Amino acid sequence: MRELLLIGIGTGNPEHVTLAGVRAMRTADLILIPRKGPDKADLADLRHQICASALEGAATRIVEFDLPVRDASGDYRTGVDAWHDAIAAAWGAAIEQHPEARTVALLIWGDPSLYDSSLRIAARIPELRVKVIPGITALQALTAAHAIAVNEIGAPFIVTTGRQLRGQGWPAGVDTVAVMLDGSCSFQALDPEGIDIWWGAYLGMAEEMLISGPLAERSAQILSERTEARANHGWIMDIYLLRRRR
Amino acid sequence: MRELLLIGIGTGNPEHVTLAGVRAMRTADLILIPRKGPDKADLADLRHQICASALEGAATRIVEFDLPVRDASGDYRTGVDAWHDAIAAAWGAAIEQHPEARTVALLIWGDPSLYDSSLRIAARIPELRVKVIPGITALQALTAAHAIAVNEIGAPFIVTTGRQLRGQGWPAGVDTVAVMLDGSCSFQALDPEGIDIWWGAYLGMAEEMLISGPLAERSAQILSERTEARANHGWIMDIYLLRRRR
Repeated sequence: MRELLLIGIGTGNPEHVTLAGVRAMRTADLILIPRKGPDKADLADLRHQICASALEGAATRIVEFDLPVRDASGDYRTGVDAWHDAIAAAWGAAIEQHPEARTVALLIWGDPSLYDSSLRIAARIPELRVKVIPGITALQALTAAHAIAVNEIGAPFIVTTGRQLRGQGWPAGVDTVAVMLDGSCSFQALDPEGIDIWWGAYLGMAEEMLISGPLAERSAQILSERTEARANHGWIMDIYLLRRRR
Repeated sequence: MRELLLIGIGTGNPEHVTLAGVRAMRTADLILIPRKGPDKADLADLRHQICASALEGAATRIVEFDLPVRDASGDYRTGVDAWHDAIAAAWGAAIEQHPEARTVALLIWGDPSLYDSSLRIAARIPELRVKVIPGITALQALTAAHAIAVNEIGAPFIVTTGRQLRGQGWPAGVDTVAVMLDGSCSFQALDPEGIDIWWGAYLGMAEEMLISGPLAERSAQILSERTEARANHGWIMDIYLLRRRR
């Protein structure tokens, strides 16, 4: 049975990779690297950099493949399902071209467990044993960069998406909310009074941006710096933590 | 100004350490390793193992110090505050014995951001610049070992403690709950109907234990295997994820 290694590689700092991640890359016969188009070429480059330093002297082969584009028209969940089917087909096709490869690896941004589809895509491919190597998440890179704890002492916190925050407002029962997958600064939907924000973009990378403070005072600054950075780079990945003062 | 590096080292697998963690250890002049008494000697041993493999050829000095014991009588929060003061004093005393050390490191189980007190303790020591190097958390080691995602597609999840789960019941607004710091299998306080559990102990270590399935069917098994393992090892660290079926 073929083995698929899903290796969490952290958020942009090549040194986020764990020793287990390095070992897994070197064990693999084949590493598949997705091409996502020219806008995100620097993300593919980063994966190549990580491979180059990890694989020195190893026999692992690196193969690029084209990642299908998601059809954003129509129903969201149907679109995502069809997209995952198409990605599974692309992985399958890339793997089938290398029948000698018994261990195939994919480098996963962050950690394969957190708002990532690799496990669900892998489940669509028959006769594949999946192994996960955890990696540093954007949430950890954010709290590390700000040198803060994610939780207050003994208190719970929620991790959610921009869509949920816009639709549901502040979640019940918690004073701390981490927001991911937010393309539209959904904190704008909240009454900022009494809320602090810790925001970060390009975490772990040379371009890392950090802003923190009372949401009422930082909201406009984050919006404008985010817009500008996104225009300059062609893409942005950001995340933030919100905390209600007691 | 002296620098204190809080280095997340993961949950027991020495290969959870990141390349950034290795670099930070080698950069440090001094690494402080807490002694927590004979019951947890294997945890101090693990830190020494990690140091030995990371530090080969580096000039970093390793110093052990005695960790104060928490006074469990009286009010919980007051006890924790006094304990953190005592730990800060112990760190300070250990550091002052090595005035030449400009960069001091502590190896933090898991990640310094998640249910860990190091950042709050460090804040008690004046004239110290704190830098955090993130590490793999128990939650990531759990989801990796079970090869599951922590979230459902686009859905939020909550991270909470055993105490909160016992006191508050199932949190509002989420179908997924990760429970940490639970010394008493607080899932027993829930109606198990319609809930699945993924449980793990000694994650990343040779003794790793994993149990998953419907809570109604696994609850008794987890209780008995946990009790037995704890008696055998002298200590146990475990964590679990609960998910409500829709």
